[in-house]
Amino acid sequence: MTVREATAFAPASVGNVAIGFDILGFSVEALGDRVTVRRTDAPGVTIRAIEGVAANLPLEAAGNTAGRALLAMREALALPFGFEMSIVKGIPLGSGLGGSAASAVGAVVAANAVLDAPQPQLELLKFAMQGEAVASGSLHVDNIAPSLYGGLVLTVGIEQPRVKQIPVPPGVQAVIVHPHMFLGTREARAILAKTVALSDFVWQTAHLAGFISGCYTNDLDLIRTSLDDVVIEPQRHALIPGFKDVRAAAILAGALGCSISGAGPTMFAWSVAASAPAVREAMVAAFGARGIATDHWIVDIESRGARVESGGS
Amino acid sequence: MTVREATAFAPASVGNVAIGFDILGFSVEALGDRVTVRRTDAPGVTIRAIEGVAANLPLEAAGNTAGRALLAMREALALPFGFEMSIVKGIPLGSGLGGSAASAVGAVVAANAVLDAPQPQLELLKFAMQGEAVASGSLHVDNIAPSLYGGLVLTVGIEQPRVKQIPVPPGVQAVIVHPHMFLGTREARAILAKTVALSDFVWQTAHLAGFISGCYTNDLDLIRTSLDDVVIEPQRHALIPGFKDVRAAAILAGALGCSISGAGPTMFAWSVAASAPAVREAMVAAFGARGIATDHWIVDIESRGARVESGGS
Repeated sequence: MTVREATAFAPASVGNVAIGFDILGFSVEALGDRVTVRRTDAPGVTIRAIEGVAANLPLEAAGNTAGRALLAMREALALPFGFEMSIVKGIPLGSGLGGSAASAVGAVVAANAVLDAPQPQLELLKFAMQGEAVASGSLHVDNIAPSLYGGLVLTVGIEQPRVKQIPVPPGVQAVIVHPHMFLGTREARAILAKTVALSDFVWQTAHLAGFISGCYTNDLDLIRTSLDDVVIEPQRHALIPGFKDVRAAAILAGALGCSISGAGPTMFAWSVAASAPAVREAMVAAFGARGIATDHWIVDIESRGARVESGGS
Repeated sequence: MTVREATAFAPASVGNVAIGFDILGFSVEALGDRVTVRRTDAPGVTIRAIEGVAANLPLEAAGNTAGRALLAMREALALPFGFEMSIVKGIPLGSGLGGSAASAVGAVVAANAVLDAPQPQLELLKFAMQGEAVASGSLHVDNIAPSLYGGLVLTVGIEQPRVKQIPVPPGVQAVIVHPHMFLGTREARAILAKTVALSDFVWQTAHLAGFISGCYTNDLDLIRTSLDDVVIEPQRHALIPGFKDVRAAAILAGALGCSISGAGPTMFAWSVAASAPAVREAMVAAFGARGIATDHWIVDIESRGARVESGGS
C-alpha cells in the first residue's frame, strides 16, 4: 500500500559562496524547513498551514515556492491526485539562507515519498526550481541543489542541469552569522549591474577555478586566495550594515574567506576548525558593535541533503 | 664550475581552452621553441639570431619576448653578468599557439641553467610573464604557465601567481589544427568588448567550474557540456574563416568540445583517443573546403613542460 503522508526535512544553504554566483552553494544542516505532504483525492495543491519562524507567507499554492514546486510536479507527471501540505519554517525569511529553496525542496522530497513511482533526484531538482522561481523571479539553483543533494554543490545548466558534489577539505568548517534584518532576494538582484567588466570577469573566473581546484586538492592556500568575490559582493555589500567590518574581522581571526550568503544579509566564512570559534566571535562582535543582534552557527560543510523523516519509504 | 651555456625546449600551448580566458592553458608537446643562452661577461642581453619557422622578429632585447624576460631576470636578481641568446622558433608567429610565451619560457629556463643560484619555477614564471607582455600588451599567463609547467595549467593571480596543474582524464587527447593564416594577439584582444553580460558571466562560470570539476573526476559528460565558450568565442570567431564549419564538423565527429586556441586562428578540440583521428580529419576537411591549408596534430595533454636539453644541470 502506498503511504499517504510523509514529512521531509530540507536544510538551509549558502548560495553563491562568494565566487559562484547562481551556480554554487553549500547546505547548512543547522537549520531547515520541514514539509509534510499528504495525498488527496481532490486534484490541485493546497497549503493548510505555514508555521515556525516565518509564518507570513502566501498560502495560495501558485504564489508559494513549495506550492509551485508541487504544481510543477503534478503537471509534469500528470498525477491523478492532489497534495495537501503544511510547512514548518526553520529558516527566517529574507535571511539569505535559502529558505524558499528549502521549502520547495522539502515539498518535492516529501511528495516524492507518496508517489506510486518515485522520481530520481534530478527530476525533483527541476520541480523545486520551478518553485524557487516564484520567490526570486528567476530560475536558479544555487540554493535548491545543495539543499536537495547536501554538501558543496555545483550546478551546470538550467534545462538539463548537471549537479556535482564537490569535496570540501577535511577540517574546514563554515561559520554562519545571521544579522536580524530582512533583505529580499528580488531587491538584492535588482541592484546588480547587467554587465561585468572584462577584467573583473577574468579575476572572478580565476578565483572560481582556483576555489574548485583547491577543494579537490585540499589546497587551503589556494582556497584562501580564491575565496574572494570581485563581482557581486562590491555591488551588494552596502545593503548590509557593517559588512566591511565583519569581513575584516573574520579574516583577521583566521578565516579562509568571508562573504555574503546568497543575497544576504547573512554572512558566512570558511575556516579551519581550530579558528572557527574565533572567527564566529569576531563576526558577531563586529555586528554587535553596530547594535545588530545575530544568530550564529559553526557547521561542517557536509550533509545528507533533504530527506524523508517520517512516512514514505 | 658553472655551466656557461644551455639550450632549453619550451612547448607550444593552447591558451584560454574555451572557458578559461587568460587563466587556463595546456601545453602542446608536438611543437615548441628552442632557446640557447650563453653567459657573457658584458652586462645586458643580446639576441644573436632568430631562426626557424618565424625569423622575422625583433632582435633588440627590450622589444623581444625572450629578451625582455631575460632583462627582467637580470634586473630582479641583480646579476653581474649578461646573456647572449639564439632562438630557433618551432611555433609559427600569430598562430595562437603561444609562440611568444614559449620563447620567453625557453629563455628563462635556459638562463636559469647557467645561473650560480638557480631560481624556483615560480620565479621563472614571473620573468617570462614580463616577456610575454611585450607581445600581447598585457600581463597574462595562460600560455606561459602551461609551457613552463606542462599539461593543463590554471594560474590564479598575477602579482603572486598560484599555478595549478589540473589532471586530464586518461585517454583524452587534443586535436590541434593550424590554418595557414596570421592573427595578431593584440588585434584579437582589441576586438573584445570591455564588459560581459551578467547572464553570459553566469553561463561561462558554470562551464568553467564544470570543466574543472569534470577534469578532477573523469566526468566526460560534464566536460562535454562545459567545454563551450559563450563569452570570447562569439566575439572572435569571425576572425577565422570557416570557424563555424570547423567547430560543427569536430563536434559531429565526436569531439568533447572545439574552440579557438588562444587568440586564434589555430583551433583545438578535445576528444577521446578513439575519435581523435576522425575529429582531426573533419576539422582539416572543413578548413580545406574553404581552400585553407592546415598543419595538424593529435597530442596527449601532458608534458614535462619546458626543460633544459643540453648544458646546464
